[in-house]
Amino acid sequence: MKSIIKLSSILLTSLLLTACGEKQQNSDNAQIVKQQTFEWKLVTSWPKNFPGLGRGPETFAKYVEKMSGGRLKIKVYGAGELVPGFEVFDTVSAGTAEMGHSGAYYWKGKIPAASFFAAVPFGMNATETNAWLQYGGGLELWQKLYKPFGIIPMVGGNSGLQFAGWFNKEINSIDDLSGLKMRIGGIGGEVMSRAGAVPINMPGGEIFSSLQSGALDASEWVGPYNDLSFGFYKAAKYYYSSGWQEPTATLEFLINEKAFAKLPLDLQEIVTVATRAVNDDMLSEYTARNSSALKTLKEKHGVQVRTFPPEVMQKLKATTALVIEEMAANEPSVAEVWTSYKAFYDDISAYHKITEQAYLENRQ
Amino acid sequence: MKSIIKLSSILLTSLLLTACGEKQQNSDNAQIVKQQTFEWKLVTSWPKNFPGLGRGPETFAKYVEKMSGGRLKIKVYGAGELVPGFEVFDTVSAGTAEMGHSGAYYWKGKIPAASFFAAVPFGMNATETNAWLQYGGGLELWQKLYKPFGIIPMVGGNSGLQFAGWFNKEINSIDDLSGLKMRIGGIGGEVMSRAGAVPINMPGGEIFSSLQSGALDASEWVGPYNDLSFGFYKAAKYYYSSGWQEPTATLEFLINEKAFAKLPLDLQEIVTVATRAVNDDMLSEYTARNSSALKTLKEKHGVQVRTFPPEVMQKLKATTALVIEEMAANEPSVAEVWTSYKAFYDDISAYHKITEQAYLENRQ
Repeated sequence: MKSIIKLSSILLTSLLLTACGEKQQNSDNAQIVKQQTFEWKLVTSWPKNFPGLGRGPETFAKYVEKMSGGRLKIKVYGAGELVPGFEVFDTVSAGTAEMGHSGAYYWKGKIPAASFFAAVPFGMNATETNAWLQYGGGLELWQKLYKPFGIIPMVGGNSGLQFAGWFNKEINSIDDLSGLKMRIGGIGGEVMSRAGAVPINMPGGEIFSSLQSGALDASEWVGPYNDLSFGFYKAAKYYYSSGWQEPTATLEFLINEKAFAKLPLDLQEIVTVATRAVNDDMLSEYTARNSSALKTLKEKHGVQVRTFPPEVMQKLKATTALVIEEMAANEPSVAEVWTSYKAFYDDISAYHKITEQAYLENRQ
Repeated sequence: MKSIIKLSSILLTSLLLTACGEKQQNSDNAQIVKQQTFEWKLVTSWPKNFPGLGRGPETFAKYVEKMSGGRLKIKVYGAGELVPGFEVFDTVSAGTAEMGHSGAYYWKGKIPAASFFAAVPFGMNATETNAWLQYGGGLELWQKLYKPFGIIPMVGGNSGLQFAGWFNKEINSIDDLSGLKMRIGGIGGEVMSRAGAVPINMPGGEIFSSLQSGALDASEWVGPYNDLSFGFYKAAKYYYSSGWQEPTATLEFLINEKAFAKLPLDLQEIVTVATRAVNDDMLSEYTARNSSALKTLKEKHGVQVRTFPPEVMQKLKATTALVIEEMAANEPSVAEVWTSYKAFYDDISAYHKITEQAYLENRQ
């Protein structure tokens, strides 16, 4: 009996050992492998299951669980469920959650160049930003910035061009911005400040009541799809389509470096590829649903869509250039990112002027 | 001795059985599973490793092999290596290869509505087409069309807006198209024919010599990135940027339905998600490299970039509308696809006129 136990024990050990390193091939083209399972937490800056932004990480978690055959389970937390929305970065850095989903501009206090990986006023749109990140050296610079915090950034979807926002009065000249209390963050907030407005940082969930109470005169948020679901049309009269502050909002997956290193190579690849698939998916979702939501806002809720006069756009554009040049002059890490961003932007904007832009004009 | 063999045999059988169905959980959070391995062939319509188009399926195969830990190995064949480029559809339908990578308009002889899943002249661009496919019902219609052939279509990347092409004479009026022998396929070819030109179908690899010999007066292919690598600037004088025939070229992965059904669920998901990641990746590659290739063509090779006069664009646009309406009137499957496409297009083009297009104009 002893010898029996010994033999079966050797067999088992041998199976387990080959499974961890090489795999054992059987005659029916099958492998016997030992697989470790993982459970991860993913914290976000969005309300749980929020359309678009909040759906992205949920889609990601589903892709990963199915692709890994359940070996990597990721539980997604809405803002405030585990930690507040603006604590995502620190939570992933500390490893309290293995992953996060957010927008890089929220960390500009900690990392001045972070905004360039989310949105640059009068900068690149979604397609262009993706191209810079993947084929223009952008992602490497982003990884370098997050490295000291033990975080690996990956692309996390895209909202497309965001609207200029909701206003309780019409903007007919640059003077109309004077003293305007507006919820707007990132570089756009600084530009608005120089243009005379009073920029206010505020999570999405507080905008509606602030517009109603008069604590805010104006607010940008995302675009028709999200703005409709927040009901802003009940709290502000004019909807300005002429987005300038966020020609795209690139979202980010944040991954704790040590947690990632503990995954076997196949799960690492599953996580990485899933972020790219979400990046593809979210822009499609926003494109389709922004378009139908704008129809609903106009046709069902009588929303008046406006554009800023050229004078206002020119002033905001000139101020943006000043703000970015100052940021780059004061901070070497901003200068490094801006040099890369601007070189890519100069080429791609010239290219898209004679291709995409010319095409959109020709097809009308 | 006999009993020893019997016990170890029971142990092994038990391991294999639990592995096929449920998995066996160990105390160290590990599973012992039996995994089948697969080797697939993927045939393409492009030269092996061709920039962009040919890189897409190679990237796909790498993603899948790494994500599956080597359980699904996909060998990619260039056009002509296993079958000619225009036989990809039939080869996947027959199951001789489990997968293919191509463009749907190549099958318009067999499936009249197929072109709408690749490129529609004066239609949707890459972002818009992706949105229609994933969130506008497009993919379901595509799947329905390929179903009788035992093929599942999935998105396979995107070239972005294609250039109008290379011409050996200037196009100053619609009369200049008369008798012009031009390599152009899909719906664009039919439009060119009605406009007086002689459209010719020809694989990419034969264009250069045909332009040089005078067998062709003009040819569209893709855009600067691919056109530079084919050296067309040595064979034609003028490069027209005003693309109209393919505002995007959506590429496709073709998957043999029976082969797909034989995969376990995790590998099915790996294949599906990898197609979305490639879709994200290829447009980024084209965007970045088209932009730099156009600089090279102009600055290094002195290429003269031209645009069609408005008169020519208007004529091509009006003719496109006629051709598509006729196609829809003659063929119910085209009518079904066109109804869905047009409804989405009408909304999204109105939306992008006040957002993307307005933004591109404002940022100049």
